[in-house]
Amino acid sequence: MFYHVKELQYNAKPSQPDPVYAKKLQEILGGQYGEMSVMMQYLFQGWNCRAESKYKDMILDIATEEIAHVEMIATMIAQLLDGAPANEQDEAAKDPAIEAVLGGMNPQHAIVNGLGAQPNDSVGYPWTARYTIASGNLLADFRANLNAESQGRLQVCRLYEMTTDPGVRDMLSFLIARDAMHQNQWMAAIEELETTQGAVVPSTFDRKNEKQEVSYTFYNFSEGTESQQGRWAGGPTLDGQGTFEYITKPEPMGQIPELQPGPPYIHGTPPLSMRQNQNNPKPFQ
Amino acid sequence: MFYHVKELQYNAKPSQPDPVYAKKLQEILGGQYGEMSVMMQYLFQGWNCRAESKYKDMILDIATEEIAHVEMIATMIAQLLDGAPANEQDEAAKDPAIEAVLGGMNPQHAIVNGLGAQPNDSVGYPWTARYTIASGNLLADFRANLNAESQGRLQVCRLYEMTTDPGVRDMLSFLIARDAMHQNQWMAAIEELETTQGAVVPSTFDRKNEKQEVSYTFYNFSEGTESQQGRWAGGPTLDGQGTFEYITKPEPMGQIPELQPGPPYIHGTPPLSMRQNQNNPKPFQ
Amino acid sequence: MFYHVKELQYNAKPSQPDPVYAKKLQEILGGQYGEMSVMMQYLFQGWNCRAESKYKDMILDIATEEIAHVEMIATMIAQLLDGAPANEQDEAAKDPAIEAVLGGMNPQHAIVNGLGAQPNDSVGYPWTARYTIASGNLLADFRANLNAESQGRLQVCRLYEMTTDPGVRDMLSFLIARDAMHQNQWMAAIEELETTQGAVVPSTFDRKNEKQEVSYTFYNFSEGTESQQGRWAGGPTLDGQGTFEYITKPEPMGQIPELQPGPPYIHGTPPLSMRQNQNNPKPFQ
Amino acid sequence: MFYHVKELQYNAKPSQPDPVYAKKLQEILGGQYGEMSVMMQYLFQGWNCRAESKYKDMILDIATEEIAHVEMIATMIAQLLDGAPANEQDEAAKDPAIEAVLGGMNPQHAIVNGLGAQPNDSVGYPWTARYTIASGNLLADFRANLNAESQGRLQVCRLYEMTTDPGVRDMLSFLIARDAMHQNQWMAAIEELETTQGAVVPSTFDRKNEKQEVSYTFYNFSEGTESQQGRWAGGPTLDGQGTFEYITKPEPMGQIPELQPGPPYIHGTPPLSMRQNQNNPKPFQ
Amino acid sequence: MFYHVKELQYNAKPSQPDPVYAKKLQEILGGQYGEMSVMMQYLFQGWNCRAESKYKDMILDIATEEIAHVEMIATMIAQLLDGAPANEQDEAAKDPAIEAVLGGMNPQHAIVNGLGAQPNDSVGYPWTARYTIASGNLLADFRANLNAESQGRLQVCRLYEMTTDPGVRDMLSFLIARDAMHQNQWMAAIEELETTQGAVVPSTFDRKNEKQEVSYTFYNFSEGTESQQGRWAGGPTLDGQGTFEYITKPEPMGQIPELQPGPPYIHGTPPLSMRQNQNNPKPFQ
Amino acid sequence: MFYHVKELQYNAKPSQPDPVYAKKLQEILGGQYGEMSVMMQYLFQGWNCRAESKYKDMILDIATEEIAHVEMIATMIAQLLDGAPANEQDEAAKDPAIEAVLGGMNPQHAIVNGLGAQPNDSVGYPWTARYTIASGNLLADFRANLNAESQGRLQVCRLYEMTTDPGVRDMLSFLIARDAMHQNQWMAAIEELETTQGAVVPSTFDRKNEKQEVSYTFYNFSEGTESQQGRWAGGPTLDGQGTFEYITKPEPMGQIPELQPGPPYIHGTPPLSMRQNQNNPKPFQ
Repeated sequence: MFYHVKELQYNAKPSQPDPVYAKKLQEILGGQYGEMSVMMQYLFQGWNCRAESKYKDMILDIATEEIAHVEMIATMIAQLLDGAPANEQDEAAKDPAIEAVLGGMNPQHAIVNGLGAQPNDSVGYPWTARYTIASGNLLADFRANLNAESQGRLQVCRLYEMTTDPGVRDMLSFLIARDAMHQNQWMAAIEELETTQGAVVPSTFDRKNEKQEVSYTFYNFSEGTESQQGRWAGGPTLDGQGTFEYITKPEPMGQIPELQPGPPYIHGTPPLSMRQNQNNPKPFQ
Repeated sequence: MFYHVKELQYNAKPSQPDPVYAKKLQEILGGQYGEMSVMMQYLFQGWNCRAESKYKDMILDIATEEIAHVEMIATMIAQLLDGAPANEQDEAAKDPAIEAVLGGMNPQHAIVNGLGAQPNDSVGYPWTARYTIASGNLLADFRANLNAESQGRLQVCRLYEMTTDPGVRDMLSFLIARDAMHQNQWMAAIEELETTQGAVVPSTFDRKNEKQEVSYTFYNFSEGTESQQGRWAGGPTLDGQGTFEYITKPEPMGQIPELQPGPPYIHGTPPLSMRQNQNNPKPFQ
Repeated sequence: MFYHVKELQYNAKPSQPDPVYAKKLQEILGGQYGEMSVMMQYLFQGWNCRAESKYKDMILDIATEEIAHVEMIATMIAQLLDGAPANEQDEAAKDPAIEAVLGGMNPQHAIVNGLGAQPNDSVGYPWTARYTIASGNLLADFRANLNAESQGRLQVCRLYEMTTDPGVRDMLSFLIARDAMHQNQWMAAIEELETTQGAVVPSTFDRKNEKQEVSYTFYNFSEGTESQQGRWAGGPTLDGQGTFEYITKPEPMGQIPELQPGPPYIHGTPPLSMRQNQNNPKPFQ
Repeated sequence: MFYHVKELQYNAKPSQPDPVYAKKLQEILGGQYGEMSVMMQYLFQGWNCRAESKYKDMILDIATEEIAHVEMIATMIAQLLDGAPANEQDEAAKDPAIEAVLGGMNPQHAIVNGLGAQPNDSVGYPWTARYTIASGNLLADFRANLNAESQGRLQVCRLYEMTTDPGVRDMLSFLIARDAMHQNQWMAAIEELETTQGAVVPSTFDRKNEKQEVSYTFYNFSEGTESQQGRWAGGPTLDGQGTFEYITKPEPMGQIPELQPGPPYIHGTPPLSMRQNQNNPKPFQ
Repeated sequence: MFYHVKELQYNAKPSQPDPVYAKKLQEILGGQYGEMSVMMQYLFQGWNCRAESKYKDMILDIATEEIAHVEMIATMIAQLLDGAPANEQDEAAKDPAIEAVLGGMNPQHAIVNGLGAQPNDSVGYPWTARYTIASGNLLADFRANLNAESQGRLQVCRLYEMTTDPGVRDMLSFLIARDAMHQNQWMAAIEELETTQGAVVPSTFDRKNEKQEVSYTFYNFSEGTESQQGRWAGGPTLDGQGTFEYITKPEPMGQIPELQPGPPYIHGTPPLSMRQNQNNPKPFQ
Repeated sequence: MFYHVKELQYNAKPSQPDPVYAKKLQEILGGQYGEMSVMMQYLFQGWNCRAESKYKDMILDIATEEIAHVEMIATMIAQLLDGAPANEQDEAAKDPAIEAVLGGMNPQHAIVNGLGAQPNDSVGYPWTARYTIASGNLLADFRANLNAESQGRLQVCRLYEMTTDPGVRDMLSFLIARDAMHQNQWMAAIEELETTQGAVVPSTFDRKNEKQEVSYTFYNFSEGTESQQGRWAGGPTLDGQGTFEYITKPEPMGQIPELQPGPPYIHGTPPLSMRQNQNNPKPFQ
């Protein structure tokens, strides 16, 4: 169960309105790697957690913090939209250059949301639950989380570069710091799990049942061998179980596929012999 | 540019048709972590790559292999659908229990695809480009890739457990091995990048501009402190730059948000004083 | 900012696993009118609220409760999935009728979520942010909320009828009661706003600018006049401003539309005269 | 069955082209609360109607009118797009400020639709059937309809403010009037149903089966009690069946959830004891 | 503008309920090539039509018929859902085999739609406006329409095979006939346009501006030359302007792409030299 | 299985960066009729092909070429984004008119993709698998392909008109030529199939089972008979099997639909008699 306090986790006060920037800032609210994504991802991972309770508790602690991040960004966006010139008769709208700048705002911010934030990304695409992952395997999911915090911090840093507003930058500097923490945190949790269960997910599948001949082979599917210069093309594998091998010209190992004709009630393309025996072979002319 | 050979990379021959399993197998074809996702993700990462050419070449080698994996699974699904009883008058359909089993097939496999594979997941949801990530930052993206191969191998292992068909298992054992390789490969590439640029993404943002007071702090946003028992709650941080701190009762640091009323042309809810002065205050009765 | 306590708001303990019912229960978790929808809708309405603070506070109180409802249902679903027979070799799977029953479960519950809840509806369609509405006009939005709680309670009642599990029914009886409260609550808030601002949304648009000749007219666009029998076809209008009028045979009031040809660079269909003067009029044969 | 006449229901003639406004106007054509939504919603409610025939007839009368509204707006948009400067060599394109204004148009209006309307909203997001609701319970659905007409009229009023074109405003003034009528109409139909069946949806569920202790309770899930000042926090409830109660500090009533470990074939995270006994515990380094 | 009559265009009366078939039938209502798609596609093509009025009139005639087809199928589905056993206590539900059969119904038909049709396809995926095409070029669009009627008739024929219900088959036999007509009709309209404007869309683009060396070349991008056996690999081209050429081993004609590094504020992966000069190169360990 | 060579199929070198044009060019990469669509459509048609091997080979030859087209356009977009002014402090950003022009770029190109191409269309909507069609009936699918190449070439021609950059135009001239070839190719393949199996899809459904009275009838569902002037309203039908008939005033042939009330556990709207007997008829006031 949850409780709310009215204060934000950190300041969210722009120095002045900027409706065009408000559109861009939506990316880290409702985008693929925005705060809504990590909020929902951590909530579902926590609720579904079947491992030791310290994991469930840890995941839900961060999840709860992420709700507060969504709150901060939504509040910031609503304030950046103050003064958005939706009205044709505004003075601002008379200068084509100014209108052009303002034309860059998201029209739904005025028409649909009445100068409020929306749960969408920077091109107006709605947040979708397909952004979340909760697989029931913590090592797999913590890698998803490390990725999410990496993409997230990258995007916030880019947005930091796109504004000079000190209030906006202050809030972003907080989010950038928290994303640094969360990267460190998931790396720590990953290290802990890898120590006890190994690095390949899932660790519990009997490796005798995988085709081990190809478990450590790099296939060079292109002309040229630039790809041979990396750590992945030779030396011991990262799971400590094998040695990387580099195949310069990989050959197919499978059959040439041939599908049998479908049954008549599927009405696929009939074999040619049958087509020629039809009594209405009249073509389109 | 690409070339095609008619042989599959590895065998894809089921021992017998199984239309219900064909539906499940769609998950690793067109699902969030199916082969289409890694195929498209690696293609776009390769095409957009602005780093040394060995990275571009390596990424596109794997991308090209993944197209072959999509080909194998699509071929397998088409064969599993042979004999699917779409026809009401089939013998099979007379026994309610048998029909019930068959009722578990995806109806679109017959109606829309004529007993062919479709680019969708196991509940029929279409593959969407929002599954891909290509950020222009290789460390961020390689973490996305490691996650994708972890989720992917996990799902293939689960599907392995759901069948006893030796032909299907043979193909899956190949995919499981390749996913083990790909996890190792992305771990190797990550290690190489972290050695030279550090572990926090992006490494190029000046850390003086982040709010460093909170860069290594774990906030316990719940009652109870089970979350204090992990590696993430104390000791040196994984980026080697700080020490984890655990805050038992985090306090808000921000303002209580108050938004100003919107302008009249937005037609939001007017302040009460204005509402009471209206000359048509007649309520709904 | 938010805090979490580990206890659920109310019990969520099934008497026994039921993976097929788990699939159905997803509707009120991640469906159009599931708990995720009201949670996100109320959060955004609260964060965007520009009216008196009592409204913001009230909306966020309910929003916070709804997060707890999502938590309860997710927890229930995870438990209903205990014992889901994903494994081909299970005893249960040997009886075709039993397998058929189990075949009704959502395959992603096993393959993707590892026996956990997912943020999707009962056909596996992911929750989308397009389900939320936060317009900045409270009367409009409270009507959206009354609708959401009406559709929501209706769906929970239907799900109550579809199970006899006492533990599931206990949780649903709680949700049904809360939805009754929330319908009452939004009706109360609507009544309060209508008293001071009138019943037509938005109340602030100058009605002289609307085409008042047709503001209270019912058009019978079909043969037969059954539609004349309702309250909507005569008597005073509900906003207290007019009288309903019934038009048996409505006539068009507008022009016959004629669009001018597009410019050449759009390459639309050229006018016939131009088509006949082309020097490559060779048809497809 | 339906018939078409060539005249529009009302005039749709802009005074001059305005491709940027055409983009905005798409919101009330293909947006969440655009005319396509009410058209499809009323059609499905009418076709699925199992109540007295006067309801079915009434709903389909409005549905048929809404098709005509879609027609009017589509026609308007096509005319607003006349003169859209898709061509690089146009005079207009030489002035950066003018091009900037024109840059605000939706590129698909030229590239995809050849200067025609599209079934999408103002950010180009396609209309989706998830916008419709037809539940089979008329009171629930009429509340959905009242909400749709409220959101719809609000958006049309906002769009009215964003233009000074007399032709566009003339058409919008007609739509605003019709939305006023439709709000009144659904209010009338709601009143009629509530009189005979009560205000809580669904009215047919036996209230003994709901947890009535919490059916009229407001929970204050935040610090501070501003939310106590409203009509919803005290006095008789709107269904006439109870009294609102206000709980200042709500306590959880449920269990601390604990999920059991998943079965082995799910390959979730194994319990620590099992992880430590693995024979390949080699960590990622 | 449109009018409605209460009779259906053709009979839609099943002989008995069949909720599982109702799910399948949704494909031709709300699927990619269902009646909603052609209805919306023809409506938008008609409203956007800038050619001679006979085209606009013809397109809207068919569009209006298609609304009636949606009406027929929706009515059929609602009747097929009569008797759907949503209730756990029903007799039917006691036999696991029977329940299994019934388990194949779409759960939303009961939970969301109260035994009514929904605007979705046979796997519950909602209809989306991305299914429509209205390009402003009639020849292009009529080819889209011919395709839609071909896919549509194919799907209806498959559904005809999946039932023995005489009432359902009667309705489907009508739709199959109308789709035969509509294929003929679009073929006729295509022939008319190709006679006057040529077969390549768009006909108005100056062919001197296309790279004519490759306008009639078939590239064999695979090993083996089975693809040489078709009409497309030799002889005069169908537009009457050239001769097909077959290239057995196509060679690339373009550059090896090399992208320059991104600017610093994008925070992509820095070049290696820069990475090694960083002052915090501490790797993840 | 597939191989990659590093050279592009054809040149993709812009003369200078143009981030706004990069946004528009996304339409033919990830739009409904972009290269990703034909690539995936042909791949799935090829893999699912159950007809003679020459068809499978031919389809996969083109599919393989289309991957190379996606590669060319992605490479072009990445180069058009060089110099995109994401940074607030750039000189360019100081002039409002210039910023306005630049404001037309897709913000995700900088924030999400780090100046790389994305698998989306020109309004940022992600590519979806619902764009593909692979029905198992080759004549139906080749019509889908002819349509795709027609819409595709039309869009590329429009984009050609929107730029004067010689490098971009050079690449587009190549794509326009290939689309001309592919239209010719699918027309040739269609002709070949129609000659042997007839023009109506599917040709294998026994036409005695369709309602042949209406197989060649044009219904005029509007006032006025402009639609009678076309080839489709009289003369022999294109399948050579009948004669077009024109019905000026079509009459309904079906029943007035009446649905029975739903069962109690569905909680639809109860019949009026039942509503009036309820013991809690208290209305909302």
